[in-house]
Amino acid sequence: MGEENTVYIGKKATMNYVLAVVSQINAGCDNICIKARGRAISRAVDVAEIVRHRFVQGLDYKDVKIATESLPGQDGGSANVSSIEIYMAK
Amino acid sequence: MGEENTVYIGKKATMNYVLAVVSQINAGCDNICIKARGRAISRAVDVAEIVRHRFVQGLDYKDVKIATESLPGQDGGSANVSSIEIYMAK
Repeated sequence: MGEENTVYIGKKATMNYVLAVVSQINAGCDNICIKARGRAISRAVDVAEIVRHRFVQGLDYKDVKIATESLPGQDGGSANVSSIEIYMAK
Repeated sequence: MGEENTVYIGKKATMNYVLAVVSQINAGCDNICIKARGRAISRAVDVAEIVRHRFVQGLDYKDVKIATESLPGQDGGSANVSSIEIYMAK
């Protein structure tokens, strides 16, 4: 199908997200984007590596983007948080 | 000088590493590599973004590499841990 699908990484266990990515690929997606912010960035990298090494052969990194997002803070100001986007494709 | 210098990110406060990277650049390094493993990956991304946005103008990402390293575990086996290498250059 070649459609691009995004999996957002949050605070759940790593394997939940691994399953989500593998499901997308098995459903016919050739392109996957894994996104995360702040502390979840480490988990996003874990998810990508586990999918690649244990579940899906021939999946490669196309691009890894790093950026900063400005989120509205509780006190009316804004907080900057780092983000990562990992693009993978067969 | 054009020499490549590596800053390893550990468990210290983020600004310690930001200072280390900025010092390298001010000492004449055009290429910087920021490396981290496991939980420190999020901090590595923070360091790169803070240096870029607040301290050094014109610094761009050249490459971001993700991999898995196998470390010897305490029980004699080995543990896999994700790693990141962020290459930046002026």
